[in-house]
Formats: sequence, structure tokens, C-alpha cells
Amino acid sequence: MNEEGSGTTPAETARAEAKAFFRDGEPLLEVCEDWGDSYRILEEDGKVLIQGGKTGILYGVWQRILDCLCKRRSSAERRSPRCALRMLQCWDNMDGTIERGYSGPSLWFEKGTVSFDPARLRMLGRLLSSVGINVLCVNNVNVREPAQGLIEEKLPELRSLADLFRPYGIRLMVSVDFSQPIRAGLADADPLNEETARWWQRTTDRVYEAIPDLAGYLVKADSEHRPGPFTYGRSHAEGANMLARALRPHGGQLVWRAFVYNCMQDWRDDQTDRPAAAYQTYAPLDGQFDDNVVLQVKHGPFDFQVREPVSPLLFGMPQTRLGMEVQLAQEYTGQQIDLYYMAPMWEEVCRDLGEKRPTILAAVSNLGRDACLTGDPLAMANLFAFGRFAWYNEARPKESAEEWARLTYGFTPAEEEKLVSALLGSRRVYEKYTSPLGLCWMVNPGVHYGPSPDGYEYQSWGTYHRADRNAVGIDRTKTGTGYLLQYPPALQERYGTLERCPEEYLLFFHRVAYDKVLRDGRTLIQRIYDDHFEGCAEAEKMAAELETLPFPGEEKPLILDRLSRQISNAREWRDVINTFFHRLSGADDGMGRTIYP
Amino acid sequence: MNEEGSGTTPAETARAEAKAFFRDGEPLLEVCEDWGDSYRILEEDGKVLIQGGKTGILYGVWQRILDCLCKRRSSAERRSPRCALRMLQCWDNMDGTIERGYSGPSLWFEKGTVSFDPARLRMLGRLLSSVGINVLCVNNVNVREPAQGLIEEKLPELRSLADLFRPYGIRLMVSVDFSQPIRAGLADADPLNEETARWWQRTTDRVYEAIPDLAGYLVKADSEHRPGPFTYGRSHAEGANMLARALRPHGGQLVWRAFVYNCMQDWRDDQTDRPAAAYQTYAPLDGQFDDNVVLQVKHGPFDFQVREPVSPLLFGMPQTRLGMEVQLAQEYTGQQIDLYYMAPMWEEVCRDLGEKRPTILAAVSNLGRDACLTGDPLAMANLFAFGRFAWYNEARPKESAEEWARLTYGFTPAEEEKLVSALLGSRRVYEKYTSPLGLCWMVNPGVHYGPSPDGYEYQSWGTYHRADRNAVGIDRTKTGTGYLLQYPPALQERYGTLERCPEEYLLFFHRVAYDKVLRDGRTLIQRIYDDHFEGCAEAEKMAAELETLPFPGEEKPLILDRLSRQISNAREWRDVINTFFHRLSGADDGMGRTIYP
Repeated sequence: MNEEGSGTTPAETARAEAKAFFRDGEPLLEVCEDWGDSYRILEEDGKVLIQGGKTGILYGVWQRILDCLCKRRSSAERRSPRCALRMLQCWDNMDGTIERGYSGPSLWFEKGTVSFDPARLRMLGRLLSSVGINVLCVNNVNVREPAQGLIEEKLPELRSLADLFRPYGIRLMVSVDFSQPIRAGLADADPLNEETARWWQRTTDRVYEAIPDLAGYLVKADSEHRPGPFTYGRSHAEGANMLARALRPHGGQLVWRAFVYNCMQDWRDDQTDRPAAAYQTYAPLDGQFDDNVVLQVKHGPFDFQVREPVSPLLFGMPQTRLGMEVQLAQEYTGQQIDLYYMAPMWEEVCRDLGEKRPTILAAVSNLGRDACLTGDPLAMANLFAFGRFAWYNEARPKESAEEWARLTYGFTPAEEEKLVSALLGSRRVYEKYTSPLGLCWMVNPGVHYGPSPDGYEYQSWGTYHRADRNAVGIDRTKTGTGYLLQYPPALQERYGTLERCPEEYLLFFHRVAYDKVLRDGRTLIQRIYDDHFEGCAEAEKMAAELETLPFPGEEKPLILDRLSRQISNAREWRDVINTFFHRLSGADDGMGRTIYP
Repeated sequence: MNEEGSGTTPAETARAEAKAFFRDGEPLLEVCEDWGDSYRILEEDGKVLIQGGKTGILYGVWQRILDCLCKRRSSAERRSPRCALRMLQCWDNMDGTIERGYSGPSLWFEKGTVSFDPARLRMLGRLLSSVGINVLCVNNVNVREPAQGLIEEKLPELRSLADLFRPYGIRLMVSVDFSQPIRAGLADADPLNEETARWWQRTTDRVYEAIPDLAGYLVKADSEHRPGPFTYGRSHAEGANMLARALRPHGGQLVWRAFVYNCMQDWRDDQTDRPAAAYQTYAPLDGQFDDNVVLQVKHGPFDFQVREPVSPLLFGMPQTRLGMEVQLAQEYTGQQIDLYYMAPMWEEVCRDLGEKRPTILAAVSNLGRDACLTGDPLAMANLFAFGRFAWYNEARPKESAEEWARLTYGFTPAEEEKLVSALLGSRRVYEKYTSPLGLCWMVNPGVHYGPSPDGYEYQSWGTYHRADRNAVGIDRTKTGTGYLLQYPPALQERYGTLERCPEEYLLFFHRVAYDKVLRDGRTLIQRIYDDHFEGCAEAEKMAAELETLPFPGEEKPLILDRLSRQISNAREWRDVINTFFHRLSGADDGMGRTIYP
């Protein structure tokens, strides 16, 4: 046991945490060998008994601490997580940079080696375990040298990380390069080449000797110039299964990202429709993946835009273990400058998925070496909420916002209400001042912050809005690209016509004339203007509210700085988007507000 | 004297070059002490006498060699260069990169030090001197560490370069950082602070001890975030004169770039007009600069766009020594991928300047460590033509293209005619498939290659076209921003009305409706479409012609590769620009050619 209160097993950690928190009133802990992640909290005559599995006991202690801090009774129900794999995936490169990281450099990589502050990582282990995360993938899915070494010559370094997180019930995962056998001297990485398979088996055996509880491998293949099975004319099932078989003897999972599309599309090609790509690639493979393969699907069909409908692939593979990927790193959603609390988005995704919600969840991390870990201190709410989401398999936006606020700040009820209300509204505010009505991609290319209405319009990424002087959006129904047909009938019905389609998805599914009168009597163009004026005003109002809160001294300047940058960003979006559509449509604002020429 | 045939003085170099070239039939050389750069070639009874100044004798030998290679008699006239300063300015950084360089790394900087192949630089010295260049500024005007050291701790390294180029009649120039005294420990860099002036004097004295013939300093101040006199509330005359006075005792020139504008403009601001900035800043200072100051003005008011009118500042400072800057590096003009021979543009600039042509000329270099020195072997034509331009102070597009082609390839007359004709037409071809009619800036931001019609439209660089569904362009006449009023009356007349303005400048000076009928009966929008279809077709035709030429083996693949990339680029420009304007205007092509929706 060390100074931070951890032990060498989760149960020992649980005891140490309980002792440190409850001091005299320490609850009795009882490990039930076969309970796994589940636990029960029993209160009788002022005594508290926490029963739980080898890891569940730790979750029980965290829950009891949370209940005490929230000043409420613990439920006596036995609780188990709804998702067995609750993964945080870090896009950390070994040079210390983080792809799409907005919180400083990597917490564990620096200059090509594993390098960390043990006390800080133990603190991180406590944090992640306290919200229920149990798998941590430590390196970027874009595996660049020397990260390939993590499963070869740098394996001892990877092991040092695994050893550090193990006491918190957190198992490591590692992103691997599909072409890695070639690096090791093999002629190819063809998954049907037996030599390739043998190389992976030998390598994986060695990896598990060092880290017997490794959660598995994560792979991005044939995506955005990454190598993959397509090089050898093999399917992704053949590629994934080959790796899965190397992991099987050790109980490891093979997590395969379903993020394949043509990133060299010709913008002139209006038949190819990028959102349709994942379904086209993977749905035909349903039933072909081994049972220790997880096909990890982004929640929307594009790439973590501010507003996307749910990915149709999540409905399309009933014979496949599907995982759903969300992104805490605010790549397209404000980069930890603008406030954007994600749980309301996840709730909508879950609502549209209904019964088809995957029970494996992964989040791209928003962590870095910044003092507050998340760039913007308020962005930590997303990590908290994701942990609870993955535990309950319910997004719980309000509960998580409240719990996080209470645990973090201990504000008065009125103050807490202000913060929670800002968090809950933040996604809609951001959405209103950026791309209108599900249009996506009007962002500065590359950096992905700030408006650039035509920025992706003539590029190769398959991300077009095709706005002209009369109309905007892509018809993705059967009269257009046909993408809509990938959905189950109920959603086809919901999204399929201008009359029924929720307006926030309108321009995702339909091409609409500016003068089309929407259901509330406004024209499309007026709705675009209104949203942008309102979104910016709401951002200003939200900032003014948050500025009054008594955030701790070290956080306050960070938060104020970000709020003021958010307001600048919102004004820029408002004016650029309004001007862009005004130049195209020629329509003036019905309320006479300023639109620059 | 060394193996490349150079001596230690230009006269010795002249003798060595004559001996190496003419072997037995060596001409008699006679140095006339006070002739400077001028020379005379006398032929009598088969004997040749070349008379010339200490440097002129070398130019005489080069001219004689050129005449022999071109198989023509030498003129007996005494010839002097029309421009005393014929400068090549290199944007080489000490890390070895070149800002806007398209020909590989720096020829003399690497990893923070001066590092070169002496034989290669002697070859370069011969090359530059043979076309008449006599000043070489070796480092980027954006002076970044450790380049400041070139006039301090790295002075011996700078001297090694000066020593190397001296035998070719080429004097070094160095770009300095206006805030350099602060680096040296002074409190400020205020030009009116006597301590600052003393520091520059002492430093300059030391520099001239090492390099007694240094041509002087080049300065970019208060421009695109560079430090300058404005920091201290001083004028650019005060800033420049302070430095000029440090150079004066040594006969050095202070070259001050007149490239000041607000690069943080709000795109909503339609009163500020970037092309007007240089005149507004400098014209009021006319007469205030010391006589060893050269105010170096870019030929156009923007920044080396494909088509700009001449800078009005070149007319506006009769009491100031003005230099004119052109850019051989094809930053906005094809990046040494697309063929773009510049002399026709210079000819137009000279035509519009009339009597006001400056007699000091500077070119931003297009050289790098590539085997052929210029990325595209054909881009060397621009360096050759610039050297001749600076000598004659006449652009001479046809003569220079012919001489360069003859000296370089020795083709048959028919082949030479094909090459010369491609060179002469290349600028117009490039212009036709890129931004229409003087509009400028429809290029990918940052990289400056390839189309992005709105790429700069909402940015802070002051570079807007404000295209909407009805019209495009900025009214820069007195009814608009008033920029036109900076010109002398004749040019105001020429550019000022839709009726008289040359169409290639139309959208630079005027805002024009798409359906406006131009002088030849076509509408503006039809003219835009026509130019783009024609420009692309002409690029394809030009490439097909050039592909038939017997370029040397090592050059041919480079040239073919670039021609094929130019065709792709031209097609992309054609389609993107046509689509952009079609989406805005709704006008179909009158000839029914394909415009993508």
C-alpha cells in the first residue's frame, strides 16, 4: 500500500480508499470471489457492509463514498455494470503529442518512451476507477513509430503502465499496427498467410507473459491511409479474426474500428456518400467475426460532428458484438474551449437506438498533462458522465451533471443549479451557432475549430453540403443517395420526409430550398439566421451566468478565459454562417438584425 | 584559381572563365579601373578585346560567351547595367528550410549553421554572375533564431559565404531583425534611443571588419507580426534612417521592405482595403529617408498574385530611392509545378510604370538544393530572365526566353520555338484557369497552391472578393474604397471605369454583376466560364507540345511529372471555380460544357 491509498489488487485499493475516506466509521468489506464487477451496500444499525467481487468491491466503495458526499442513503440493491467493457481510448503518440488533444501533452509518453509521474498516474487510476472505467487503451489508433515497439522491444515499458493501473481494476489495451509483421521482417501482413498469423501468435504470447490481464488490441485498419487487410484482398473479418485468434488463448479482445470510407473522394462525385460507407463495408460481414472480436462503431455515420443521426451500422449487424465509440476530446465540438457537455447527445443516440444499444462502450479520451487534466476544468464533466454512461448503459445527462457538480465543487443548491443548467444546455447552444440543422463540416479544415462554410466543400473527404443560391443539403433518401435505406423502417419513417424529419436533422437527410416554409411557419433561411443569432446570444448569457460562480482559485482564470474565447468563437460562427447564406440566398433577416454583406 | 575556373577577384574569374571557354582563341582582357560594372567588346581582324571595370570585365566575358553560344557578333557598344543593385533575396532559414521554397532545402544553411558544398556554391556564383546579379541576400526576411547570429556570433560563418561569392562580383546582403538589440541585452530597439543606434553602429562596424564589401541590410519591419519602429511610436523613416546611418560609413545600403498592412483585419470591415495600405503608410514619408535607404516595394499592391495592377506606391514617392521586388519563387503562381514564365508580367508592370520604373530591382529567389536548383528545370528561365531584366531594366520576355532556351538546351529552331512559345504563353494560361479577371486570393490558405474560392474570405488577411449571388469583386474606385485615387490621373483613367478598364483587371477594381455584358458581348459569368475552360485546355495543349521536346535525360522525368501535375491542378481550378460561380449565379454555361453542381 502506498501513500495515495492504493494497494496491489483492487480489493486492497478498496480497503485503503475506505480507510482513508471514512477514517473511524470504516465500512466492513467482503469480497465475493465470483461477483466480478458487481457489489451491494448493506446498512444496518449504523453499520455498513459492502460486498463485492474482486473488482466490484472497489466500485462498491466508490459508490458508498459518492453517496456520502451526495448526502444520500445507499441503495441496498446488488448492482452490476450494464457494459462489461467500459473503455477509455487515448490517442497519445509516443513523442508526447496527442492527436486531437486539447489538454497538453501525453500523461505517459514523452520523446519516444514511456515516462510518467507515478503519483499522478495513480491519481488518474483512482479517478477512472471511481467513475467505473475498466479498460484504458494507452496509444493512438494511428500507430506510428516507435509505438509499434510497445508490443515488442518496449513491452517492459507497457508493462510498467499495466502494473500501475492494475490496482484500480483498470486493464490496459494497446493499439496495434496491422502491418507490424512487416516491420518485424516478414514478407507481408496478409491475414491468411500462416506465417503472419504465427508471428502474431508468438508476439501476443510474449505480450501476455508480461501483462497477463491485457484487455486486448485495438486496430484502425484500411482507414485514412492506415494499412489493413484490403492490401491483400482480404475482408475485415479475415483481418480481425486472425488477430482475435492470437488473443483468444489469453482471453483478450480484439477491438476493430469500423471507420472505413474513401478519404480520396472526388468532390464532383455525387453518388458516393460517405455516411453510407461503414454500413456498406461491414454489414455484409455480419456473422463472420469471431466472438472475441468487438466491432467498434462511431455513434454517428460521419465523424463526431456536432449533430449526426445515429449510425445505421449499429442496427445492421445482429450477429456481431458491436461496441459504440464516442469522443470526449472535443475535436469538432469546441476543443475544450467552448462548453459542450455530451451526455444529452448520448441520450439522443440511445433513444434512437432503442433496443439496439451496444453494451460495449468506448470513448476517445479528453485527458492530458494539464494541471486540470482536461484543458477546460468543466470538460471533466464529460469524462465523469461517460463513466456513468458506460456503467448504466444510460446517458443520464442530468444525474451525472448534478453528481459531478456536487462532488467537484460543493456549491450551494442555487449555484449548482446554474452550473448544471449551463452544462445541460451547452450542446444545444454550440449546435445553434455552428453548422445549421445537421449540415456538418462547415469547420476550418485540419484544425477543426472555427467556421469555414466551404472549407471541406471541394476536398476529398466526402463531406459536402452543396449549398447553392437556391438550396442546401444532400438528399440522402431513396430519391437521392439512398443512405436512408440503411436504417430500420421506423427510422426511415422518422427521417425520411420533410414533414416528419426532426428539424435538427433536416439538412443531414434532405436538400431544402431556402424559402421552404418549415413546420413552425418560418422559412429555412430565417430558421438558419434565427438559430445563429440565438445561439450566440445564449452563449453570451451562459458565460455571464457561469462567471458569477465561485469556482476554485486555480480553475477560475482557466474557465473565464475559455468562456471569453467561446463568445468570440460564437460571434465568428454567427456572422460567417449568416453572411455565407445571405450571399447565396439573397434573403434578408426578417428581424432586421445585422448580417454583414 | 580553383578547378571551377574562378579566381579571387572578378577580374581573375573573368580570365579563368575566358581561358576555360575559349581555350586557344582566348580574347584579350583589359581592366579599366573606373568602369565599374560596364564593359565593351571589340572585334578587329579576328582578335577580340574585352575592356571592362573590375567587375565589368567579368560581365564582358560572360556576354562574349553568350554571343558565341548564340552564334552572333558581339556589339561594340560600351554597356552598363541600368540597375546598380540587382538583388536576389533568399528566404532561407538557418534550420535549412526555405520559406516558400519549392526546390528543396537551403543551399547554405543546415541545422542552424552555415553548411555548404563549396564547389556547388561556386557553380552558383558563376550562374548568378553570368546573368548579372550582383547582390545576394542569404537569409529570410523573417529573421528567426539563430539567424540573428549572422551579424553577431555567427559572423565568421557569414564571412565564409561572402568570401565564396566575392570572386563572382556578388556582394552579400543580410536580413536583420529590427528588435535585435533587445536580444543583445538592450532595454529596447527604439530607433530614437541613442543606445540602440550606438549598438547598431558598433555591430555594423564589426560586420564590415569581417565583410568590407557587404551590400547592406534588408529589413522587414512591422509586417505580419515582425517587430518594428511602430512599437515605439516611430515612423518607418526614423527606423530605416537609424540603421542606414550605421551602414553609411561603410558604403552599405539599407533596404527596407514597404510591406505593411493590417494582417488582423476583421472581414466584416469593408472600409479598410489592404492594397491601399502601403501607400497610406509610406507616401507621407516621401523625402524623409536618408539617401542610402532603398524602399523596396512589391510590384503589385497585394502580394505576388497571379494578376495585380502595379503598386501605386511606385508613383507616389518621387523623393525616395525606390526598389521594386518581384518573386521568382512561384508562391501563388504554381510552385514550380505549373509552368509560369514571369517576364511577360514584368513587361506589363514596366509598361504601366512608364517613366517611373525603379532602377533598383530585387527578386525573391527560387533556388534550393535540388539537383536542378529550381525544382522544375524550366523554372530556371525565370532566374535568367530576372538577371537580364535587372541589367537592362527591361523585362525582354522574348529575348530572354530565347537566349535561355538556346544556352540551356541547344534545340533545333523548331523545338526552340515550341519551348519559347510555351514559356511566353504560360503566364496567361495559368491566369485563365485560376482566379478570374484580377480577383486574386482564391487559393488554398497557408499552402497557396490549388483552388479554394472562399478560403481567404472570412480570414484576417484583408483579401476578400465578396462574391454573392449577384456580383463579385471590390469597388476600389472613388465610389468604393477609393484605392484607385492613389494612382496618377492616367492610370485612374485607365482603370477607373468598366468601359475602359482592361478586362484582366476588371474584378480588381470593380464590383461587377454576373450578367453584366462586357465589351466583347459576353456576360461576366460567361467570360469566367470561358476563361476557365480555355485555360485548362491550353494547359493540356501546352503540356502535349512540351512533352515532345528532347529534354536531357535527367530533366525529362522532372518536367513530365510537373506537366502532368499542372494538368490535374488546372482541371481542379477549372471545375472548382466554375462550380463556385455556378452555385452563386445560377447561370448555366452558354456552350453547354460540364459544370458540376
